Amino acid sequence: MQLYEYIKTEIENSNIRKGEKLPSKRALASHLKISIITVETAYAQLMAEGYIISKPGSGYYADTFDDFQQSEFLQEKEENIPEESEILYDFRTNRIDTSDFPFSTWAKISREVLSERSEELLNACHAQGIPKLRLMIAQYLRDFRGLQVSPEQIVVGAGTEYLTGLIIQLLGRDNAYGVENPGYSKVYEIFSANTSRVFPIPMDEKGASAQAIAGFGIDVIHVTPSHHFPLGTVMQVSRRQELLRWAYSKEDRYIIEDDYESEFRYTGRPIPPLQSIDKNGRVIYINTFTRTLAPSMRISYMVLPKELMHKFTSRLGFYSCTVPVFEQLTLARFMEKGHFDRHINRMKKIYRERRDILAEKISEAKFGDIVKISGLDAGMHMLLTVNNGMDQNELVLTAARCGARVYRLSEYYSFPVSDMPENTVVAGFSGLSGQQLIKGAEALYKAWAK
Amino acid sequence: MQLYEYIKTEIENSNIRKGEKLPSKRALASHLKISIITVETAYAQLMAEGYIISKPGSGYYADTFDDFQQSEFLQEKEENIPEESEILYDFRTNRIDTSDFPFSTWAKISREVLSERSEELLNACHAQGIPKLRLMIAQYLRDFRGLQVSPEQIVVGAGTEYLTGLIIQLLGRDNAYGVENPGYSKVYEIFSANTSRVFPIPMDEKGASAQAIAGFGIDVIHVTPSHHFPLGTVMQVSRRQELLRWAYSKEDRYIIEDDYESEFRYTGRPIPPLQSIDKNGRVIYINTFTRTLAPSMRISYMVLPKELMHKFTSRLGFYSCTVPVFEQLTLARFMEKGHFDRHINRMKKIYRERRDILAEKISEAKFGDIVKISGLDAGMHMLLTVNNGMDQNELVLTAARCGARVYRLSEYYSFPVSDMPENTVVAGFSGLSGQQLIKGAEALYKAWAK
Repeated sequence: MQLYEYIKTEIENSNIRKGEKLPSKRALASHLKISIITVETAYAQLMAEGYIISKPGSGYYADTFDDFQQSEFLQEKEENIPEESEILYDFRTNRIDTSDFPFSTWAKISREVLSERSEELLNACHAQGIPKLRLMIAQYLRDFRGLQVSPEQIVVGAGTEYLTGLIIQLLGRDNAYGVENPGYSKVYEIFSANTSRVFPIPMDEKGASAQAIAGFGIDVIHVTPSHHFPLGTVMQVSRRQELLRWAYSKEDRYIIEDDYESEFRYTGRPIPPLQSIDKNGRVIYINTFTRTLAPSMRISYMVLPKELMHKFTSRLGFYSCTVPVFEQLTLARFMEKGHFDRHINRMKKIYRERRDILAEKISEAKFGDIVKISGLDAGMHMLLTVNNGMDQNELVLTAARCGARVYRLSEYYSFPVSDMPENTVVAGFSGLSGQQLIKGAEALYKAWAK
Repeated sequence: MQLYEYIKTEIENSNIRKGEKLPSKRALASHLKISIITVETAYAQLMAEGYIISKPGSGYYADTFDDFQQSEFLQEKEENIPEESEILYDFRTNRIDTSDFPFSTWAKISREVLSERSEELLNACHAQGIPKLRLMIAQYLRDFRGLQVSPEQIVVGAGTEYLTGLIIQLLGRDNAYGVENPGYSKVYEIFSANTSRVFPIPMDEKGASAQAIAGFGIDVIHVTPSHHFPLGTVMQVSRRQELLRWAYSKEDRYIIEDDYESEFRYTGRPIPPLQSIDKNGRVIYINTFTRTLAPSMRISYMVLPKELMHKFTSRLGFYSCTVPVFEQLTLARFMEKGHFDRHINRMKKIYRERRDILAEKISEAKFGDIVKISGLDAGMHMLLTVNNGMDQNELVLTAARCGARVYRLSEYYSFPVSDMPENTVVAGFSGLSGQQLIKGAEALYKAWAK
């Protein structure tokens, strides 16, 4: 952050004048003898706050926004992290390949909805979301996840982050909450921002550690049994039952089951969700369309056990639904006409293919000797444990110099542990084409196997 | 709730069988010698939970949803409160007349956006909302509210309720929060659900009482200075300055200024927002498009003082934007082409007309003798203090019997006070046509002036 502060002050003092070109990240990193990633983080924050803008193909320029300089302002990349022009193969985990999205079908249905349903389109909808969408979701869960629920138990919301916040309000902020460690960082951040007691749940080879949960005196746990992010562990039935026994052995214990990406399973039979074997209404199921449709849409849902519905409607029923009716109607029709199922099946094939291409390339002869791959059963990324003497920082840096970006596994730990992984990185494959995966793997080889 | 529990149990036991017609609300109320409103509340809750459905023109029927009975389920009214077929003139305050919305223009722009911008439409946007929309909002605030802010200070979110929750996370849950009493009930509910110390701010003839705020040891207040809901008080400059002095006299004191409905002012010059005269970055401004566009869209925004931006981005910057990109792009273009300004101006004329029609009718001869009207300066409702010997319960009940619904002022008090209003009701006029307003006023006359 020192670099960020320095540049920000220089711009505010007009020592760096508006329109002045900043050094390229590579040049600045080299000059200051710091990592490109440090410079990149500083530039990203400056861009997000409007101090600098990026002109694609040209570089970074100091800018301010007091005069509503529309054209320059609007050229700003709308993502928080500017695309690294030196990185050609970004193995990021949250990239959905939007070129695979059936956009013209979605647009056609959107237009239909616009032309037919003007009255419903303008009025407020049911607090839990329009009945038709909840019905489609319930049918999807029944057909694809073996989960039998009523539309009344479903609550649609503008993102999993929002719904998680609602769950915290429902169950109570004073609970001791446990989040998987490692895990999806945002989960930790949401609980941390909304509660006062967040604990790490260590992972073992079977998944979230039931023993540790009991040991910490935790009340509510957030777990990803279908496919752990980022380790890829699939929680087997015996561990699931352990977790349920833990929950049942005391009043007011709950399990939040985040079933994100459960659609993309490549090996073995899908295991039905924890909620489907929960007899005492202690499992809250949550899932999203953000990973299966597109990140711009922000539609997620949770399924509350029947036992919690009354508490939900009486305590939190005053909240209006956060998803626009238009999106809900379009999605409901998209699902009704079978487009969602077809899209999932198509994406599953595409992602499996990409997984195979990357895994194969990395397993080739010399590369395969030094890289151990894990987490291949499901999801959109894999773990690479590299045995070439480099630690994860060097792995990331050398890869970046060769134009490929991978991610330190340690970044997914919100709590430090004594046995932090040292040489494992995360490589997502969902956002890259087959060609890019091959070239990206070659770049990794160049970086790590020389 | 006894009635609700009884009927629910009877349905669950199959003592009331699926498809069986329930008594009409009037009949049941008469039979049990309770008010129709009690029956209505019970029926509404049963409908929201799926125990009964309403067939328009036919009545209420017991139903369950285990079999996904699509056609009956989908006929269910999507609002939480079923329309009372006996109420012809509902003077509710949150009704936007959606027939006034320029739907075909909105649809046209939606289609344009769909056809041009497929890449942006699918990717995640900036956490604070797309730059173009924030720019349009900043320009609107400058031109219509005299508020000079940068788009960087604006955060777009899926509803004021959601943004209020973010503010609480930003400022800290352990603050002592003050909400206006009386006030908009949801405000109290949001603070109550998210914090542990919520205090009432009494209202006097000048607005929120600065003296009481100081007396209670409050840290953060939520106020509606443009036009208090529901009293209609417009906070004058002197009181505004008192509030700012209160905020400045201690670290970490903040004022949340909810400027909802400030667009609809009928008399006097609009007073610039509190935030525009705040020199120390203690006022958070919040507003919404839900009241000016349509309730189904759920787009709101807040303007954080520059001093809070760093804290916001570093602590809460991980949250993704909750409004779909599609809606944001459509709204930005709608505003850019001047449609929003024109719509506001048109609605202002329409609402002023309706206000005049209702106020005139109520002020006529005999009626005017017993009804005192207040809160006429702005907004979409007025207060009627009726001096005919009835208390507010009788006023509401007798009005309902004549087909008109008004609302007890006491419903807007989240905290009881020693001098609760006894005979004042709230009558919204935004959702009724001129004709309906006249007939509705006649119904009120019949109920109250016989």
